[in-house]
Amino acid sequence: MHVVLPDGKQLDLQQGATALDAAKAIGPRLAGDALAATSNGELVDLLTPLPDGAAITLITKKNPADAAPLFRHSLGHVMSQAVGEFYRAKGYPGDAIKRGVGPSIEHGWYQDFDLPEPLREEDLPEIERIMREIIGRNLEFSRREVSRAEGLVQFPHDPYKQELIEGLPDGEPITLYQQGDYIDLCRGPHFPNTGKLPQAFKLMSTSGAYWRGNEKNPILQRVYGVAFATQKELDEYLHALEEARRRDHRKLGKELELFIIDPMVGKGLPLWLPNGTVLREELSTFLKEQQFKRGYQGVITPNIGNLELYRTSGHYPYYAESQFNPIEVDDEQYMLKPMNCPHHVRIYDAKPRSYRDLPVRLAEFGTVYRYEQSGELNGLTRVRGFTQDDAHIFCRPDQLKKEFLDVLDLTVLVLGTFGMNDVRFRVGVRESGSDKYVGDEANWDLAERQIIEAVEEVGLPYTVEPGDAAFYGPKLDFVVKDVLGREWQLGTIQVDYNLPERFDIHYTGEDGQEHRPVMIHRAPFGSVERFTGILIEHYGGDFPLWLAPRQIMIIPIADRHNAYAESLRQELHDAGLRAEVDDSSNRMQAKVRTAELSKIPVMLVVGDQEEAGRQVSVRERSPEGHRERKGVGFDELRGELLERYKTRG
Amino acid sequence: MHVVLPDGKQLDLQQGATALDAAKAIGPRLAGDALAATSNGELVDLLTPLPDGAAITLITKKNPADAAPLFRHSLGHVMSQAVGEFYRAKGYPGDAIKRGVGPSIEHGWYQDFDLPEPLREEDLPEIERIMREIIGRNLEFSRREVSRAEGLVQFPHDPYKQELIEGLPDGEPITLYQQGDYIDLCRGPHFPNTGKLPQAFKLMSTSGAYWRGNEKNPILQRVYGVAFATQKELDEYLHALEEARRRDHRKLGKELELFIIDPMVGKGLPLWLPNGTVLREELSTFLKEQQFKRGYQGVITPNIGNLELYRTSGHYPYYAESQFNPIEVDDEQYMLKPMNCPHHVRIYDAKPRSYRDLPVRLAEFGTVYRYEQSGELNGLTRVRGFTQDDAHIFCRPDQLKKEFLDVLDLTVLVLGTFGMNDVRFRVGVRESGSDKYVGDEANWDLAERQIIEAVEEVGLPYTVEPGDAAFYGPKLDFVVKDVLGREWQLGTIQVDYNLPERFDIHYTGEDGQEHRPVMIHRAPFGSVERFTGILIEHYGGDFPLWLAPRQIMIIPIADRHNAYAESLRQELHDAGLRAEVDDSSNRMQAKVRTAELSKIPVMLVVGDQEEAGRQVSVRERSPEGHRERKGVGFDELRGELLERYKTRG
Repeated sequence: MHVVLPDGKQLDLQQGATALDAAKAIGPRLAGDALAATSNGELVDLLTPLPDGAAITLITKKNPADAAPLFRHSLGHVMSQAVGEFYRAKGYPGDAIKRGVGPSIEHGWYQDFDLPEPLREEDLPEIERIMREIIGRNLEFSRREVSRAEGLVQFPHDPYKQELIEGLPDGEPITLYQQGDYIDLCRGPHFPNTGKLPQAFKLMSTSGAYWRGNEKNPILQRVYGVAFATQKELDEYLHALEEARRRDHRKLGKELELFIIDPMVGKGLPLWLPNGTVLREELSTFLKEQQFKRGYQGVITPNIGNLELYRTSGHYPYYAESQFNPIEVDDEQYMLKPMNCPHHVRIYDAKPRSYRDLPVRLAEFGTVYRYEQSGELNGLTRVRGFTQDDAHIFCRPDQLKKEFLDVLDLTVLVLGTFGMNDVRFRVGVRESGSDKYVGDEANWDLAERQIIEAVEEVGLPYTVEPGDAAFYGPKLDFVVKDVLGREWQLGTIQVDYNLPERFDIHYTGEDGQEHRPVMIHRAPFGSVERFTGILIEHYGGDFPLWLAPRQIMIIPIADRHNAYAESLRQELHDAGLRAEVDDSSNRMQAKVRTAELSKIPVMLVVGDQEEAGRQVSVRERSPEGHRERKGVGFDELRGELLERYKTRG
Repeated sequence: MHVVLPDGKQLDLQQGATALDAAKAIGPRLAGDALAATSNGELVDLLTPLPDGAAITLITKKNPADAAPLFRHSLGHVMSQAVGEFYRAKGYPGDAIKRGVGPSIEHGWYQDFDLPEPLREEDLPEIERIMREIIGRNLEFSRREVSRAEGLVQFPHDPYKQELIEGLPDGEPITLYQQGDYIDLCRGPHFPNTGKLPQAFKLMSTSGAYWRGNEKNPILQRVYGVAFATQKELDEYLHALEEARRRDHRKLGKELELFIIDPMVGKGLPLWLPNGTVLREELSTFLKEQQFKRGYQGVITPNIGNLELYRTSGHYPYYAESQFNPIEVDDEQYMLKPMNCPHHVRIYDAKPRSYRDLPVRLAEFGTVYRYEQSGELNGLTRVRGFTQDDAHIFCRPDQLKKEFLDVLDLTVLVLGTFGMNDVRFRVGVRESGSDKYVGDEANWDLAERQIIEAVEEVGLPYTVEPGDAAFYGPKLDFVVKDVLGREWQLGTIQVDYNLPERFDIHYTGEDGQEHRPVMIHRAPFGSVERFTGILIEHYGGDFPLWLAPRQIMIIPIADRHNAYAESLRQELHDAGLRAEVDDSSNRMQAKVRTAELSKIPVMLVVGDQEEAGRQVSVRERSPEGHRERKGVGFDELRGELLERYKTRG
């Protein structure tokens, strides 16, 4: 047999040769450095026989991160061995520990155990210590294919392994991996030996997990670990995790009094508290201003609609399982509106339209209700009732590109305002040869071409995904990265040939004939709830002045400055700014700390000197750090704050 | 027998004497002038025997309006006679005309007929002519009590009269009134003769009406008339009616494209078109500004709630028949929110509150849904889904007066902004001795006292209505007069001891103990839909600049001025004003007419001269009349319009 090296050279090897054999054939130094390989693009270990003619590359200690899934999986085995030694040290016999599955996952691995007594979180450092010891033993991983009978005999006291082996289909090889005295049923692949495993790992947590995910089965204890090629990467990961935890919108939502979810009101139905309402209204005011500039027209439609409306649109019964049940009213049925489009189509159709009137851009912050299983609900990001910053553009086919460009421009501007400048687009087009699409072929061609031209003009990264179009038209998703580097898919822009057809809407063309308009669905935020959840995490609650629900805290140094503080508060409030006075009996430093914990961006400290000169001492906090200015004239400061507020700076 | 005159004097009369006998006893002149009388405060005619000892007053031609119900009823008989003569003139025998009931109503009367052929609207002037002829005949009304047998024999061919007479209980007198040859079964009272009836009447319309209001019975033709003591009053009434018709919010709503009600979306569920949405958002921005100034905090709550919430509040099942049916979700039931209060109570209760935090004022433009019978629905004023400008104030009992004063002040200011300065209050307090009220006696006393003190301080007219309190607390309704003099009851302010109890909410008092807060429900507009409907009629669609959905129409005199017009439009739009250009091919005068029909308050006409000097010619329309200014500098005008917009002038 032979394999093909990256430079195209063929390497002749004996039948059943492994990547280690290939490395040895090239040179002993490489064989010593090799950690894993790829075979026809797939990650394999050094021990698994290669197929004849495979194109291979070798992964060495120069680029260990390329083999991350392998070392994570191997560390899982090392942890499993360490847990065994931990319980043996406590006096349990080896077969008292039984094991479920243990795959590698993103950033790490997990392993399920049936243990004689539960592992406690505080035991994890000891397990880590034993793991490091095992790594120090430099044990080789060996691989062995066995018969089903041999396999069964290997785990005589472990019912889970027995069940797994029994369940393997005939003809599928049964392989065991072993390091030291630890043997596990495993498909691999693995590292060559424990000594080459990275030390940059950490056991994170344990949880309960039903055997095979079935709640009728016994519950096992699952232990999670993470690992990286370098300590730096692990540190960064742990830091990001800590950041994400610190920024969790459910935690900050509670601390900053932005929203609550009250079981008495209902699952997945957030109540916006005063602070959250300010935030939400700032968002909608901002977007409404932009929409006014761009010729959108606001509309307001009811939260329910006659079922006939959704039968006509096709939303019912097509999406019935994600909708709330209909409500009987006299002899009719009504449904909580799952989307705003049918209502907007009826508004379009409420009067005759001419080609000169198009595009018609109808916008609504429309609250919709969709059924989600209660287990899926999560804070603001997965809810049962949410408000879309929805708009529907009705235009002529030849206007698509211009409208698309404007929507992209608006979206990029909106996201940029929140410092989300890392935006990419995914353009979903037809799958060639499929007949699942509605609408005219020529219109599809025109639309896809216009969208791609528009995206090209914007100049941001994009991909074209054939088959990702909706059945009713091509679409565009935008994906942004937040400050933690996490990607979020926000709203979509969708072209729709279907609803105009189903509702039979028209415009009169220049030729005096009736024509069918195209519809664009678009929502830059997507869902205001979800977007707010993302924003909370993106800013970690440290909102810029214009968004901050509580903008200014005035801190009198002593009680005698309370009246001055209150007069400033009134002036700021009259100017439309959100200002408070901390007239508690706390000391100044404590007041500053309280305001900082509440993430109030501007603190104005006032004492004798400030009062005498109608001044304030300004302390500002922002993600970039603090800034202090003493003896600032109040009128000047108020002007500065107002300007920043109005320009959303 | 005797009667008592207004000056307290007794007048002795023969048994069975009438008011006419009394008038004659006083003097022949009075007997000639008398039209009707009151007996113990009740309106009677001159022909009905008076009870012994009755306190009477005589109504003469000096104050005929006091006898309006009588002359309206008598004119009904005259009309009935005239209809008989009209059909006889067409060759029908007298008994071909059969008659249902014919009472006097507000402003006039109606009479139901079963006619050999329908009366057409265009026949009404001829009927009026015959009526005037009958009045000219100066026929006396005579009154006669008869036996049931005599009564039945009087109307041998009229099954309706037969049925009415058969239906009269034994012992009830059966009376006939007659003028000329026209006899009708009637309880009276009537005028002395047709010659004294006012000529200021008009037949308005005809419609179908089931005999006795039962749709299983034959349908009769109902003819309506109105009448007043003087022609001036009639003219004013007809003018007001025409005005009301011209201002009908359903008519203007369609013409000005403010809203539609679309049967496909649902009954009683208005869709706000772009123009209506502008109006509505101006209203809510205005109120939100006022509320921000007064320390209200916005909240946003879902449109549905778990049924448990409404069981706790008592809204369910207590008001179930005015609510939509619940929706099953998994194993729970949810209901379209019929009111916002329970949600706001839960927000109050989401964190501990101290006496220092109170009052807490939670405000929401909250959309609620209530079931109304489809026959009751009417435009924007009676709907199934509407948005309340709702707020709930949670305060200490001792803070009620101050909060009430502030709400009254806000309400009067808000209404005054729309020129609704004629406001009066109705204070609903307990009925003494009733046990239907919840809450502590001392708190009720305190609340009622504080409300009345607050109303006194405001200095506007008010009445105190014992028994009009809700079972859960005293309340205040405000009633305004619109420009047509029609009274509208807008929102209410209600004190509530019940919900704080049912939801068991608290605050920690200065004494460290838990206390129960009082709740105030308030909504200055009441329902935004209904208030908008009233505003449309109040302004007749001629909204002031700040409310006008379309504020400015720029009218280029010739095509060559289009570019200049468009540049002005862009500048006005950038400044936040709502401006359009009429670049149609119409002539200038036609463009002005179109803008006037669309009730756009400001027109800017631009031609060569204006363009050369960056000027405009301004034509403004307002309810007070037109104003024209030539050669106004554009920048100056923009500043002026912006100022008017921002100050809501």
